[in-house]
Amino acid sequence: MKAFEIKTYGDPNGLSLVDRPNLSPGAGQVLVRIRAVSLNYRDLIVVRGQYDRKPQVGRIPCSDGAGEVLAVGAGVSRFKPGDRVVGCFFQAWLGGRFKAEYHRSALGGAIDGVLAEEVLFDQEGLLPLPELYSFEDGATLPCAALTAWQSLVVRGRLTAGDTVLLLGTGGVSIFGLQLAKAAGAKAIVTSSSDEKLKRARQLGADEVINYRSTPEWGKEAVRLSGVDGVDHVVEVGGAGTFQQSVRACRFGGNIGLIGILSGREATTEIFSIVPKILNVFGVYVGSREMFEEMNRALSQNRIKPVIDRVFPFAESPDAFRHLEIGAHFGKVVISV
Amino acid sequence: MKAFEIKTYGDPNGLSLVDRPNLSPGAGQVLVRIRAVSLNYRDLIVVRGQYDRKPQVGRIPCSDGAGEVLAVGAGVSRFKPGDRVVGCFFQAWLGGRFKAEYHRSALGGAIDGVLAEEVLFDQEGLLPLPELYSFEDGATLPCAALTAWQSLVVRGRLTAGDTVLLLGTGGVSIFGLQLAKAAGAKAIVTSSSDEKLKRARQLGADEVINYRSTPEWGKEAVRLSGVDGVDHVVEVGGAGTFQQSVRACRFGGNIGLIGILSGREATTEIFSIVPKILNVFGVYVGSREMFEEMNRALSQNRIKPVIDRVFPFAESPDAFRHLEIGAHFGKVVISV
Amino acid sequence: MKAFEIKTYGDPNGLSLVDRPNLSPGAGQVLVRIRAVSLNYRDLIVVRGQYDRKPQVGRIPCSDGAGEVLAVGAGVSRFKPGDRVVGCFFQAWLGGRFKAEYHRSALGGAIDGVLAEEVLFDQEGLLPLPELYSFEDGATLPCAALTAWQSLVVRGRLTAGDTVLLLGTGGVSIFGLQLAKAAGAKAIVTSSSDEKLKRARQLGADEVINYRSTPEWGKEAVRLSGVDGVDHVVEVGGAGTFQQSVRACRFGGNIGLIGILSGREATTEIFSIVPKILNVFGVYVGSREMFEEMNRALSQNRIKPVIDRVFPFAESPDAFRHLEIGAHFGKVVISV
Amino acid sequence: MKAFEIKTYGDPNGLSLVDRPNLSPGAGQVLVRIRAVSLNYRDLIVVRGQYDRKPQVGRIPCSDGAGEVLAVGAGVSRFKPGDRVVGCFFQAWLGGRFKAEYHRSALGGAIDGVLAEEVLFDQEGLLPLPELYSFEDGATLPCAALTAWQSLVVRGRLTAGDTVLLLGTGGVSIFGLQLAKAAGAKAIVTSSSDEKLKRARQLGADEVINYRSTPEWGKEAVRLSGVDGVDHVVEVGGAGTFQQSVRACRFGGNIGLIGILSGREATTEIFSIVPKILNVFGVYVGSREMFEEMNRALSQNRIKPVIDRVFPFAESPDAFRHLEIGAHFGKVVISV
Repeated sequence: MKAFEIKTYGDPNGLSLVDRPNLSPGAGQVLVRIRAVSLNYRDLIVVRGQYDRKPQVGRIPCSDGAGEVLAVGAGVSRFKPGDRVVGCFFQAWLGGRFKAEYHRSALGGAIDGVLAEEVLFDQEGLLPLPELYSFEDGATLPCAALTAWQSLVVRGRLTAGDTVLLLGTGGVSIFGLQLAKAAGAKAIVTSSSDEKLKRARQLGADEVINYRSTPEWGKEAVRLSGVDGVDHVVEVGGAGTFQQSVRACRFGGNIGLIGILSGREATTEIFSIVPKILNVFGVYVGSREMFEEMNRALSQNRIKPVIDRVFPFAESPDAFRHLEIGAHFGKVVISV
Repeated sequence: MKAFEIKTYGDPNGLSLVDRPNLSPGAGQVLVRIRAVSLNYRDLIVVRGQYDRKPQVGRIPCSDGAGEVLAVGAGVSRFKPGDRVVGCFFQAWLGGRFKAEYHRSALGGAIDGVLAEEVLFDQEGLLPLPELYSFEDGATLPCAALTAWQSLVVRGRLTAGDTVLLLGTGGVSIFGLQLAKAAGAKAIVTSSSDEKLKRARQLGADEVINYRSTPEWGKEAVRLSGVDGVDHVVEVGGAGTFQQSVRACRFGGNIGLIGILSGREATTEIFSIVPKILNVFGVYVGSREMFEEMNRALSQNRIKPVIDRVFPFAESPDAFRHLEIGAHFGKVVISV
Repeated sequence: MKAFEIKTYGDPNGLSLVDRPNLSPGAGQVLVRIRAVSLNYRDLIVVRGQYDRKPQVGRIPCSDGAGEVLAVGAGVSRFKPGDRVVGCFFQAWLGGRFKAEYHRSALGGAIDGVLAEEVLFDQEGLLPLPELYSFEDGATLPCAALTAWQSLVVRGRLTAGDTVLLLGTGGVSIFGLQLAKAAGAKAIVTSSSDEKLKRARQLGADEVINYRSTPEWGKEAVRLSGVDGVDHVVEVGGAGTFQQSVRACRFGGNIGLIGILSGREATTEIFSIVPKILNVFGVYVGSREMFEEMNRALSQNRIKPVIDRVFPFAESPDAFRHLEIGAHFGKVVISV
Repeated sequence: MKAFEIKTYGDPNGLSLVDRPNLSPGAGQVLVRIRAVSLNYRDLIVVRGQYDRKPQVGRIPCSDGAGEVLAVGAGVSRFKPGDRVVGCFFQAWLGGRFKAEYHRSALGGAIDGVLAEEVLFDQEGLLPLPELYSFEDGATLPCAALTAWQSLVVRGRLTAGDTVLLLGTGGVSIFGLQLAKAAGAKAIVTSSSDEKLKRARQLGADEVINYRSTPEWGKEAVRLSGVDGVDHVVEVGGAGTFQQSVRACRFGGNIGLIGILSGREATTEIFSIVPKILNVFGVYVGSREMFEEMNRALSQNRIKPVIDRVFPFAESPDAFRHLEIGAHFGKVVISV
């Protein structure tokens, strides 16, 4: 079977399509024919060799894949051949509080990922793909959608009537927009492109802000909130945006830090959160239990993932480059 | 000014339209010209003399009123003449945990209510009427809507994708349906009338159950939930429905007990909640802070209160009788 | 190896000591030499054949055992021979929300229990025994202590300064007392025996009530709370005590229903919880994650389980009879 | 009556003892003879003129005072002459979520404070002084104790068995230590003084770290936690300590930011909280409802405030200077 390996770290050119021996499932394992993969900014960081747990040469990248069960090993009760499935970012984080050891089960990071025709999963590391989704749709969920879900719903306890501020139009923010609208919240979206803001409005954004023409967008978000600020920010921007995000919040507001975009060196005025009594929390994808509950919500609300573009498997490096440019709106997907 | 007083307890015939001296606001007080009142089952219990803190002869009934500010007393900063306002059920429960003393501030129970042309409020016991609402709309909110809100959102922590079971089509249940849909949940409604179930579907109910033709409606609700039961029941039915409500729930599900309908003598198998690890909680309207947050949610989602019928002020006793029959769908309102 | 089997259901005489073939651990399994077992009221119900999922003839009873690892199967990483361990009541409930399927993993109920010299566990169904505990101590934890922990801490969110009402002096209540005191709460204990109340005081109870001489003990608990009632009741009594428990609570108080004692037929005035806005929740032991966090708390506070009496293995039926009489204070243990 | 006013801003020399006209309570007001005042670092910032809402010349400083009711105005029901009382930092934050307008009710900041013989309070801005406390004890509670309470208990949901890291031995940290121990948690205290660490141990600290001899004290706190890090940090240190505090935390740990010490300009690597999924929240004293619940906990656990030194009223500027040096252990108090 074919797979992409990272032959050299640095940029997407280091990805190489190789033949790997076919796999067969051991006890408790499930062999999946991957049909679609989606990319996250983290995959780009991995390929650049900047991810904190640097994978070895020959590592298969990517965390997000959906496909079809080909075969199951002894003792597998959760799935059978033919089932449509989607993998969990953290193969070992089923529920409960996060433990350090779960980092070692992150697909496409500490262990081989899903940019391959076939992948072996532990049966506990898979979920059924919701009926309403194609493989392309399903492949967008494991990282970006779940990050937005954890930030807004699990940690932020999003409530109808709340106001949510989404930064930009990448995968996490667009899912955040869709979840906010499904949950009865008001959504404000920022972008530097009026064209993208127009599309955000079509997806339900109540208000939009062009952060280029409105550099004090935090203050503008307060105005648009109708009260004394927004209740939630999904902070994917990093240190460059954090102070405006704080500005945007109401007393007791929530900021979910994703922050992969700006790397680890970012410094900012953290203590500005004190007088506003803000809650700032790190968000790192989520557990299988969160994924299950999100899937219920996505299905119930018939939320259609926004896919920017689908690349054929052989052109996977181009998909990485497309993500790198940052001109996408929603998710970049590879059809396997 | 004119007002209805309870001259004799027993039934709506005991209500009498009287002239009362005009009022003027003292320090911190606001005089409101009531424009609309809505009825709750509790008002019927009050009029029957069955309410636990039996009001005195001459008491003005009703907790839910909306109107216009006529005049304000010294030191009033929250409102000015002309403002459209709605009153809080518990005049003294602004926020935080409930205290025994707040019972003494319940409109139309421990103190005079709002079935009058003019009512004096403490400025702290009023909220601005959301812009999108008429006085009739606004008068439906203080008790029924807030009860549904506290049950589902504040106590039950309603989440997108959850399933909500609503019993019947009275005021609380219809607001529960509307809030559930606004928050991205699945809603199941029961009734003995197929006609009402049809209307519930028009309001967004995903599934409906005629409890007459399906006496084991708890089991049916499990099936319709798509998982192992519903996440929330707004239990307005009382002892007659509680066991089916327990049956309907999934493990760890929530049952908000309103229970005014069936009075205080109801007994039931409370310990059936143990093996399902359910949460059962008493719900008693809500605080002003909850009311404010609900109003944000109602406005954001442009939820239109469902008004069954509007009676003229002079025919208030007929409005009580209409509620008594139980044939309504949504709220019964009196235009003052 | 020797084990007790339930040969006939009805009473402890139906227990029979038999020889069973020796066991050896398969993949992921751990063989444990049980050193001590503790009894719970549920074990008595099982032996009587009254447990809802009636076990088959030949079933080994008891859920609570501690011992030493004899051998581990392939792939076991959590334990090694010689480790001191304690088993989890629900072998499959590791964390997160409860699922129906977990009922099928309850030791001494749906599957064989621990009243045996040797037991095979899945490695995920065991925890290390905290250092400060003997095997006898450890055997008291899985059901009674965890039930008290879930009720007070996980569900009730026990806070320093709260008042906790404990009914009687059985295993759950005594652990509830110890946990309440460790967490800075005030504890009130009821009993019909002044002698037991004296011992409860020695364990830290701030106040005691003899429910025989004070039949209106709910009202007395309000008085002793110093405020308008207690914050938490660990309701092990059942329908016979529920109304007094409701009476004892303050507005918004918590009642954790254990309720195994009085069986399933109990009826009570559930709607009495509405005007006090109480939270009533079913408690069913707990997950492995809760068990781990409880063990941290027990160790940190050096809580010594209160053991009423230790019986030798051969006299296990006598231990059951001793529990049946109800004269114990704390836990009844069998040394294996 | 005599009071200290801030005549010139910059340092404690600007404080001046003046005669002010006697006060008499208006409607709803309570006149209090202040008996003791405690100092907080914020008072020093006020006197330096560095507080964000700069008070006017002639402002009476200090937020924390306890005393005795001299007289009450019309309509006062909560207190009567002779009652022992303590004031709330935010006079207007009774309960519920914080609102911007509450900032305008902060004693010794936006409005006159309590460094005076007599002070007029709204009756809602006072609480009864717990019986077990002297006026000196009581004066330590409004700011420092409540800040520790909100951080650990209200926001951090402190649970028995958790590990708490306290930075230094100032007022907030010492209350944090006492609350942590009362709630059954493990407490680790840092200081640069072995002498102070010895005293912290006497107050119950389980572990201590001299941060001068152990500059990597975050790592040391992980080791001392016994698990993968501490559950809570009360972060009074500011930007200089934040990275070590992050280091000290376990996955999902809580950092309460107080942060007055290091001012507003501090920058730090906020995104380091992402991979550890931390919760970082601003803490700003607390509401009256929190204060009431804290008082229950303090009384129940007979927690004795640690008072470093008591200055006579006339020497108030010396008390400020004593705080400024930073050699104190616990609270600095002025007897009025």
